[in-house]
Amino acid sequence: MLNRSHALDLTFQALADPARRSMLAQLTHGPTSVSELARPLSMSLPAVMQHLAVLEESGLVRSEKVGRIRTCRVEPHALSMAEQWINDRRLEWGRHLDRLGEYLKTLKSGGEQHGNE
Amino acid sequence: MLNRSHALDLTFQALADPARRSMLAQLTHGPTSVSELARPLSMSLPAVMQHLAVLEESGLVRSEKVGRIRTCRVEPHALSMAEQWINDRRLEWGRHLDRLGEYLKTLKSGGEQHGNE
Repeated sequence: MLNRSHALDLTFQALADPARRSMLAQLTHGPTSVSELARPLSMSLPAVMQHLAVLEESGLVRSEKVGRIRTCRVEPHALSMAEQWINDRRLEWGRHLDRLGEYLKTLKSGGEQHGNE
Repeated sequence: MLNRSHALDLTFQALADPARRSMLAQLTHGPTSVSELARPLSMSLPAVMQHLAVLEESGLVRSEKVGRIRTCRVEPHALSMAEQWINDRRLEWGRHLDRLGEYLKTLKSGGEQHGNE
């Protein structure tokens, strides 16, 4: 459980930056070299490499160097884990609203019975 | 777009901490006072208030003080926005895999045609 929690810390931290989200969005279209990844971003290559390191540490991205080209690809597992965590919270909130709805119905039908007495 | 991007920064940043995720998970069961929210966490009340401030700044949580009691409730919109962003990336990745599958099929049928010549 601790490992999963730490993994979620790193994943959400990696997603909390517009440049890293933009890099990730680009990578979901397919694997890309670092220089292609840097092209749409108005920042230096070292800055891009630093963001890439955060993405790799979180497990959202893997990269591999063949010759002089480093190719990056998305790792969908970390993304799914983050999505699942949010989805579970949304479902729990939905259950809370259902319970509240049921409770209000009980109050209403109780009031009607009381009214019919 | 800039506003949405900044909102995503704050939301993912807020989610990147186990104590804040735990507070949010508790709040999806229904509105709660700050002291109830602090009970399962092994930290001081000022530390809890600080985490609550981050959750409120991100728009994930709202709180209201009535008399001496501050009650917190989840705001599902920010959670949905973060979920939607991740979901869009996953869908795009799925489309990439589909395109790759189609391309491989083309290569295979091309090879078969070549073999029949």
